[in-house]
Amino acid sequence: MSFIGDDFLLNSKAARRLYHGYAEDEPILDYHCHLPPGEIAVNRQFKNLYEIWLEGDHYKWRALRANGVPEELCTGDADPRDKFMAWAKTVPYTLRNPLYHWSHLELKRYFGFDGLLDETTADEVWSLAEERLASEDLRVFGILEKFDVRALCTTDDPTDDLAHHQATAKSALATRVFPAFRPDNALRVDDPQLFGDWVERLELASQCKIGGLPDFCAALHERHAYFHEHGCRLSDHGLDHAYADFPTTGEASRIFDSARSGRAATAGEHGRFAAYLMLLFGQWDAERGWTKQIHLGARRNNRTWGFRKAGPDTGFDSIGDWRHVEALSRYLDRLDQEGGLPRMILYNNNPVDNYTFATMLGNFQDGSVPGKMQFGSGWWYLDQKEAMEWQLNCLSNVGLLSRFVGMLTDSRSFMSYPRHEYFRRVLCNLLGREMEAGELPNDENLVGEMVRRICFSNAREYLRLKGV
Amino acid sequence: MSFIGDDFLLNSKAARRLYHGYAEDEPILDYHCHLPPGEIAVNRQFKNLYEIWLEGDHYKWRALRANGVPEELCTGDADPRDKFMAWAKTVPYTLRNPLYHWSHLELKRYFGFDGLLDETTADEVWSLAEERLASEDLRVFGILEKFDVRALCTTDDPTDDLAHHQATAKSALATRVFPAFRPDNALRVDDPQLFGDWVERLELASQCKIGGLPDFCAALHERHAYFHEHGCRLSDHGLDHAYADFPTTGEASRIFDSARSGRAATAGEHGRFAAYLMLLFGQWDAERGWTKQIHLGARRNNRTWGFRKAGPDTGFDSIGDWRHVEALSRYLDRLDQEGGLPRMILYNNNPVDNYTFATMLGNFQDGSVPGKMQFGSGWWYLDQKEAMEWQLNCLSNVGLLSRFVGMLTDSRSFMSYPRHEYFRRVLCNLLGREMEAGELPNDENLVGEMVRRICFSNAREYLRLKGV
Amino acid sequence: MSFIGDDFLLNSKAARRLYHGYAEDEPILDYHCHLPPGEIAVNRQFKNLYEIWLEGDHYKWRALRANGVPEELCTGDADPRDKFMAWAKTVPYTLRNPLYHWSHLELKRYFGFDGLLDETTADEVWSLAEERLASEDLRVFGILEKFDVRALCTTDDPTDDLAHHQATAKSALATRVFPAFRPDNALRVDDPQLFGDWVERLELASQCKIGGLPDFCAALHERHAYFHEHGCRLSDHGLDHAYADFPTTGEASRIFDSARSGRAATAGEHGRFAAYLMLLFGQWDAERGWTKQIHLGARRNNRTWGFRKAGPDTGFDSIGDWRHVEALSRYLDRLDQEGGLPRMILYNNNPVDNYTFATMLGNFQDGSVPGKMQFGSGWWYLDQKEAMEWQLNCLSNVGLLSRFVGMLTDSRSFMSYPRHEYFRRVLCNLLGREMEAGELPNDENLVGEMVRRICFSNAREYLRLKGV
Repeated sequence: MSFIGDDFLLNSKAARRLYHGYAEDEPILDYHCHLPPGEIAVNRQFKNLYEIWLEGDHYKWRALRANGVPEELCTGDADPRDKFMAWAKTVPYTLRNPLYHWSHLELKRYFGFDGLLDETTADEVWSLAEERLASEDLRVFGILEKFDVRALCTTDDPTDDLAHHQATAKSALATRVFPAFRPDNALRVDDPQLFGDWVERLELASQCKIGGLPDFCAALHERHAYFHEHGCRLSDHGLDHAYADFPTTGEASRIFDSARSGRAATAGEHGRFAAYLMLLFGQWDAERGWTKQIHLGARRNNRTWGFRKAGPDTGFDSIGDWRHVEALSRYLDRLDQEGGLPRMILYNNNPVDNYTFATMLGNFQDGSVPGKMQFGSGWWYLDQKEAMEWQLNCLSNVGLLSRFVGMLTDSRSFMSYPRHEYFRRVLCNLLGREMEAGELPNDENLVGEMVRRICFSNAREYLRLKGV
Repeated sequence: MSFIGDDFLLNSKAARRLYHGYAEDEPILDYHCHLPPGEIAVNRQFKNLYEIWLEGDHYKWRALRANGVPEELCTGDADPRDKFMAWAKTVPYTLRNPLYHWSHLELKRYFGFDGLLDETTADEVWSLAEERLASEDLRVFGILEKFDVRALCTTDDPTDDLAHHQATAKSALATRVFPAFRPDNALRVDDPQLFGDWVERLELASQCKIGGLPDFCAALHERHAYFHEHGCRLSDHGLDHAYADFPTTGEASRIFDSARSGRAATAGEHGRFAAYLMLLFGQWDAERGWTKQIHLGARRNNRTWGFRKAGPDTGFDSIGDWRHVEALSRYLDRLDQEGGLPRMILYNNNPVDNYTFATMLGNFQDGSVPGKMQFGSGWWYLDQKEAMEWQLNCLSNVGLLSRFVGMLTDSRSFMSYPRHEYFRRVLCNLLGREMEAGELPNDENLVGEMVRRICFSNAREYLRLKGV
Repeated sequence: MSFIGDDFLLNSKAARRLYHGYAEDEPILDYHCHLPPGEIAVNRQFKNLYEIWLEGDHYKWRALRANGVPEELCTGDADPRDKFMAWAKTVPYTLRNPLYHWSHLELKRYFGFDGLLDETTADEVWSLAEERLASEDLRVFGILEKFDVRALCTTDDPTDDLAHHQATAKSALATRVFPAFRPDNALRVDDPQLFGDWVERLELASQCKIGGLPDFCAALHERHAYFHEHGCRLSDHGLDHAYADFPTTGEASRIFDSARSGRAATAGEHGRFAAYLMLLFGQWDAERGWTKQIHLGARRNNRTWGFRKAGPDTGFDSIGDWRHVEALSRYLDRLDQEGGLPRMILYNNNPVDNYTFATMLGNFQDGSVPGKMQFGSGWWYLDQKEAMEWQLNCLSNVGLLSRFVGMLTDSRSFMSYPRHEYFRRVLCNLLGREMEAGELPNDENLVGEMVRRICFSNAREYLRLKGV
């Protein structure tokens, strides 16, 4: 029997009926990912499994390192095929890690490979993939069509000119591709070199001369409008924790000027500056009817050696243990009081924050939109069966699962689309079990329609993307 | 098959035998609730489902808001029947939320309604309830008798004259109704207006003129004695976190005087004043053989708009992430060292505190009374199947489940008595599964007698309520 | 049917095949315990169940106290047999506590007792044990042979002369017994009396005159070398949290001098001094190829009465809620940057730290050794089925379970060897269930070989103990 069978992860009859009857055929709305817009625009063709699968995957690098594989074969200069062999040898050692499930699901869906990847099957898999990747079907457009991706939202710097998005919009691709506004660099007054360079790029992009803070905000606001014109309806922020020590505009100005003159902001200044901008961003999102996403709680770049050797996002980030509640409460309340609380999706990196986040969001549900405040799908280390179930259970217990906007890939790789399938199987398995145990009414239609909505239509209605 | 069948939540033969053989018929001792003493005293009759079910239920308000229902239909001025219709339409969207289970269990036990509440059944349910509520059986006395509630403890301000309790004691009601002493307002030196008003009420109630701190403490002590005379054997405190920065009496006096003169205490002063009083309260409880309850970790009134619109306790409270261990350790140790450690039940609002709370309590078990330090039943957001199981598992793993005093409703509504049934089903389901899996001895009597004790007699023996 | 049957805790066919086919017969490498080296050296014979089972077991004392048993019968002067009777009466009240499983498993494996311990069976059990303990088989050497313990590592103070280890090495015992280096006392500048006395013992042991910090470090380094010569390959530290506020050598010297002159270090000074030494210790461990163990997060001696009455480690310790991530990240990074990051096993006391610890460790996997950074087995309150499963799941989800070095007893008692069996059953039960559910490939050899490695050979290869 194949490992990834039709009923993979579906351990009850009810689960199988839910999945095959309500979830499997729903289209995908991938509202948050890190796919490179340029590769979409040119309908990239991948030469081999290294390019499509290993090139930028920090999950795999971490597994390789933990398995005793030298950096050369992770982020280093080794031959792509050697890197693949190192990965294939490591796969059997990833039993019970989500990579084991993801990898086999991906190999099956993209290449029809039905075995287990290891040293002995590596050559077969490499050749099979190489052959299939040569076809039109597994170029970017083909992949998006194959998985019925109706829309996807990339993650973009405000200084981006969105040329790739414009090109894609004119292409034959049926999938709607939107940018998302991710202004993390705008907060980086703690790193004056990085900040200064970025402000210069912002000047170019916005064609505004940026003297002081008012210019800076005006330029950002211009970019927000520009993104809106190009279909953007989501913003996104990656923060260690929320910021709610709101400064006066005067204080914020001084911090801005100081950073531009080359002095790094202190932790306190950085926090106040971040609070100032996050308030503005929230108000703009509310004004334009956008959905704001905030990813909270990752502690990045823990290992100096790794950062120097391989740069950011190469597998040296882990989960922080900040206390979030106080600042989160004050940030949301301030937006709410000033009438600028947008629809919002909050993602936590640390599972211990599930209940605090989900209940905090409940305080700000305001009856204006079903599920206005969303507790985001399991993120990063939590994007696996156990933690997905925690997120689904927490949301269910203290909020409304039925209003959930569901899954996203959050991925840099075009091979991640089966993540949606994975999520749907987990969801149906959970619900099916409870139907059979009598914890849910044994009413397939009632439960199935909820499943269907979580797969696609909740997100479609909630996000209000143009033409989707 | 009906959703709430005889074996609801009982997924093994052993579980069913435990529940029906040992749990189902045990009486109820509801040692902590927020039922209004006045409504008990007058044996209130409810006109309709709005009055008995929706009038004051912040759980339902939160679900309504999350479902996109405007405030008008939650805490606002809309017609009661319209509010009920809004709720009925929302119910199907609460699938997997405890409200879905609670609601159907309540409708079944109070009115015999065996279907699913939604828009299509709303009228039937409304009429059915209206008809049944007209009978003697569903007035307050009838309800308490129906559920075999042997005793219940309300939650009362020290300034309360307990007239309702006295009236009830003289009534025909078989249920013993006791007050519990909840002096939260006594700590509110951070809000001098509220505090001043409350001190005045305390003067009236205690008939003591309150000049400085000694008078204040004497008046409180008098009320403690007064409550004791009226059968009170439990105190209760709702705190964000424990306080253990103990001031001298001189410092506490200065903070008291300052608050009375209209100046708000700083956070530090408030904490020291709270520590001072909490030490006193603990000692008084120990002297009089009371049980002290402390509810720790809710972060209240997160949304200014909600507080202004609807007041406190209207669904804008959520779970805090304070660190509790240090202060909790020092508070308990101080009481213990001064010979004034009463029997105590600690409730945590954040599930991540389960293990720290339960193990901290174990440090202070002193061999004087079985289960002297109790890890309280799942509270608030944790009062649902998943989190009840967490609490039961945690208590089992690091303490003695067999000495647990069990469930309470913590409710403002007379329709919450099936919560005890719900808890018992969860408990029996957990234990039955383990009997069948061989994790517990397959000895029905051994396990069943433990179940029975947790349902009623542990609490009866532990709480020492007069005549119960 | 007996409670501890052959298939205890093995709830699927696959689980049973894994356990009996791959786990059961593997030898034991008990790389962390608190067994007294002197009792090993003399091949101690135990007179009765009190001596071998109750004498020093704080888990049992806590259960007794929680069950209302006076201190006299816990750590006090009561007759050993009376203490045993108190314990026997308490056992039925420990249903669902790990003590219930551990106790029956131990009675079965050591004495063949197949019933349930309670008041009615206590006499039988006492006599049976007394009789069996008289045989050679249940003296220390017999026990270690019976459980096929290939090696064990005790926990030793750097001032220990290791005479017992030398005597044991010359004995007939097949089990290799190694010391482990636990220099906790070296950090205790916060307690100048204790610290001063310990420095004197260190002078004697190292035969170095200790004037200032350089002498102190030299003496410690000498002991590290001495332990290495005697086969030590592991260090161990019990810390509330990590320390990463690194001082200059000058500052560390001043703190050292000040403590020696009788002044207690402040919390800040203590933290800096600890950071200074922990950096050194890490570098020495790396140089000599040792494995460093750090136990983080217990809050000890919470109850003054208990500490005074019974001393440390008598059941008044519980779980702390410190934030660990920041300091842990900086400590590991500093070691890594200075080329002195040893193989390391981190144990957390609070289950909420599972994900932060396990992901933090992943940042420092460096491809040099498979599983270089190990997420330690469930420790203390987490050494039970539920929390073992959490640890295994967490490790699996964010790391490589297949590289795990597995279980240890961490015990002071020679009756704890079935803990390894218990762990193996939990592990096989988890994996077997997933094989049958299709979450793991249904390939017994693939999963079984992983089980086998986790039982013994991973630890053997990782720890590099001489002759093991």
